[in-house]
Amino acid sequence: MKKTLSLFILLFVSVSLFAQGKAKYVFYFIGDGMGADQVNGTEMYLAEKEGMIGVKPLIFTQFPVMSVVNTYSRTNSVTDSSAAGTALATGEKTYNGAIGVGKDKEKLTSVAERAKKAGKKVGVITSVSVDHATPAAFYAHQPDRGMYYEIAHDLPLANFDFYGGSGFLKPDKNAEGENAPSIYPMFEKAGYKLYRGLDEYSQSSRDEKLILIQKEGSDKNALPYAIDRKAGDLALKEITQSAIEHLSYKNNKGFFLMVEGGKIDWACHDNDAATVFHEVIDMDEAIAEAFAFYKKHPKETLIVVTADHETGGIALGTGKYALNLQSLQYQKVSANQLSTLMSNLRKEKNNNVTWEDMKQLLGENMGFWKEVKLTWEQERKLRDEFEHSFVQKKQGFEESMYTKTEPMAARAKEVMNEVAMVSWASHSHSANFVPVFAIGVGAELFNARLNNIDIPHNISKAAGYKW
Amino acid sequence: MKKTLSLFILLFVSVSLFAQGKAKYVFYFIGDGMGADQVNGTEMYLAEKEGMIGVKPLIFTQFPVMSVVNTYSRTNSVTDSSAAGTALATGEKTYNGAIGVGKDKEKLTSVAERAKKAGKKVGVITSVSVDHATPAAFYAHQPDRGMYYEIAHDLPLANFDFYGGSGFLKPDKNAEGENAPSIYPMFEKAGYKLYRGLDEYSQSSRDEKLILIQKEGSDKNALPYAIDRKAGDLALKEITQSAIEHLSYKNNKGFFLMVEGGKIDWACHDNDAATVFHEVIDMDEAIAEAFAFYKKHPKETLIVVTADHETGGIALGTGKYALNLQSLQYQKVSANQLSTLMSNLRKEKNNNVTWEDMKQLLGENMGFWKEVKLTWEQERKLRDEFEHSFVQKKQGFEESMYTKTEPMAARAKEVMNEVAMVSWASHSHSANFVPVFAIGVGAELFNARLNNIDIPHNISKAAGYKW
Repeated sequence: MKKTLSLFILLFVSVSLFAQGKAKYVFYFIGDGMGADQVNGTEMYLAEKEGMIGVKPLIFTQFPVMSVVNTYSRTNSVTDSSAAGTALATGEKTYNGAIGVGKDKEKLTSVAERAKKAGKKVGVITSVSVDHATPAAFYAHQPDRGMYYEIAHDLPLANFDFYGGSGFLKPDKNAEGENAPSIYPMFEKAGYKLYRGLDEYSQSSRDEKLILIQKEGSDKNALPYAIDRKAGDLALKEITQSAIEHLSYKNNKGFFLMVEGGKIDWACHDNDAATVFHEVIDMDEAIAEAFAFYKKHPKETLIVVTADHETGGIALGTGKYALNLQSLQYQKVSANQLSTLMSNLRKEKNNNVTWEDMKQLLGENMGFWKEVKLTWEQERKLRDEFEHSFVQKKQGFEESMYTKTEPMAARAKEVMNEVAMVSWASHSHSANFVPVFAIGVGAELFNARLNNIDIPHNISKAAGYKW
Repeated sequence: MKKTLSLFILLFVSVSLFAQGKAKYVFYFIGDGMGADQVNGTEMYLAEKEGMIGVKPLIFTQFPVMSVVNTYSRTNSVTDSSAAGTALATGEKTYNGAIGVGKDKEKLTSVAERAKKAGKKVGVITSVSVDHATPAAFYAHQPDRGMYYEIAHDLPLANFDFYGGSGFLKPDKNAEGENAPSIYPMFEKAGYKLYRGLDEYSQSSRDEKLILIQKEGSDKNALPYAIDRKAGDLALKEITQSAIEHLSYKNNKGFFLMVEGGKIDWACHDNDAATVFHEVIDMDEAIAEAFAFYKKHPKETLIVVTADHETGGIALGTGKYALNLQSLQYQKVSANQLSTLMSNLRKEKNNNVTWEDMKQLLGENMGFWKEVKLTWEQERKLRDEFEHSFVQKKQGFEESMYTKTEPMAARAKEVMNEVAMVSWASHSHSANFVPVFAIGVGAELFNARLNNIDIPHNISKAAGYKW
């Protein structure tokens, strides 16, 4: 009896830990530009916002396995998003600029394509344009990331089941800059139904293959930043919900879904800390959808969360034994949107903006002089820029008022970083480690320090895709 | 028969993976200031030195388990080394400045003290002074890290078997600054044999308890930087060897050994990249000793490698898709030693140092104008500082020639960072993640993202120390 019991216990332990089988459902989240300390900063921000020193954990940081990943490309110690996307998609290092092709521009096979071959339904979604480097690396094969038209042409060839994002950058202009036949009829001909916005997309839509983008008139480049989001704006969480729903409908073969949080990178390029942290939280909300699915299918699901590279060289601390991340809660818009508000103010005031007007705008949107106290040096920096760009050079700005970023917004952002004690090394990428988190079937494959090319291999192994 | 075989296989799998028993031998390495990207930079430097883009792995980064750790203290988002050391030693967050005591200055019990209580031999060693914050947190209990004399007094009370480091900072001056009885007779009275240097310390010394420091006349503050090491200088690897040998001699109860790589932090405070990477390599060489031991006792040994906090806010990249870490191989001395060489040159040349003399010194020690090409802007920066501190203000420097860091050495270091494309956020600590690596019995306890206070708990769990 005792022996039988031991056998039973051992069998149980072994089955639950080893014999879980393959990951029928795979979620692959990629936070573009999300270095390890972008995640750290987000959690410390959330804690400070609640008056605590420490961290308030996101969902994905609580996954049972975590490690870090090297991101360099074949040609550069510091990768770009296309070489990094290709590495994360195909398991091969390539040159900066390449989309799904190797060093000699030969076509590489992505883990998403392998999933498709294995009979899985496949989705590729992002908070930026569908033809952007990271999502493109999963379905397209082009020698240059800027070939948006040609990348879009590869989309139906991959024959995936769900694509989602903000839109398409060059729907009717090819790499040579010539007018070309629109991609949209081509998508339809290939059997894709295109939905513009969630109102158009209905949960009862049971098309075999579909593309979900933002509603007509939206910015095709990207969804709005989470910090700037208005009611009715499409969110990454919603695209993720829709994709899960679509891919799991009447499907007993399983699926593979890649989800990119694409604008963490953009906010990091901008050195805009509050906006970065809101984007990380936003991706966590999309991950919450996957986690809810995981909880229903814990023995058949793998969730992997990682990043393509770090952007900005963020450091949490500027020389004191302190941070003041809580001040970032008073930033109500992205630095990019702040610039737009400043330009709108110019227009509204017929280019006679007063310092009082500006102080009001900065108070409302950045909390300056209200919850966020400024030193005289910080105030002087803002006032100097105001004199420079709103008083002395005000004519100069009229010409390019709607396209140029207001230097005043850049100064406000610098002051906010200084107040929050967040430092940035540059406005570009770094070779700093990115994190990887995993839960579910095969999560133990992500225990050790990894190279980015290991990740699709490990996913394939966990899911049983042919390599 | 088949059933019996299954049982056998299951038992075998279970035994090898779960029933390994407890970690009889524990190695706990702490790289002071060693953030995740200090490690990353070291490996990318080693690769670039060999003409490759990528990483040349250290020993400890290949351990099967890796994760990252939050380091904030009870009182500060950015910790100091004493609160961090106390957290890593006792599993409790405390205030910055505390050594082995909690928020109300109450005595906390360290994992090393628990190991001692469990009948293990215990060693605490470092590349800085034995009474410095990190080692002190394992054996001492004082309200302030600056109380070096009082900390040293706690050393025999902990009754550990092996202490090692550069020396003691205040052997006969108490916290009030008053002369006090020397600690050395007190050590002897408590049964400790003090060895100054490896020549004095003999492998045949079979004293029960001993303290190994540098030979008479050495810098009591720290061992020399690895990059500056001369023949006969004591190295962390040698102290580690000696400690392993001492702790394992006629000992069938096991041991616990804490090893601090203490000067990674110092070089980071100095923003001296080449020196940092050499210090990380140097700690890896000490880890090699533990790894050799592990290979002999794989089922009874746990090695954990982590850090107390990140220092400097290092970023690998300054705005281009490139690094040039290979240039750091031409830096032959630490920036600190470079300053000494400059001061020596002043003396040697009776304060009439020419620009040609300086160029020669910088060429020999930093590779400038030789293997390391400089832009005109970089050269001008050096030349401007030379004019400032060697031509115009040369008298000013004579006064404090031996203590003051030469501004010229600081400029040279800045130019080297620029050439190598390494950026630093500050000269102080940050809240950036630090890494943790583990191999051996209980390594799986380090799979997920951790807080620093989890680490001693996990070690105790793996080793079976009473908590």
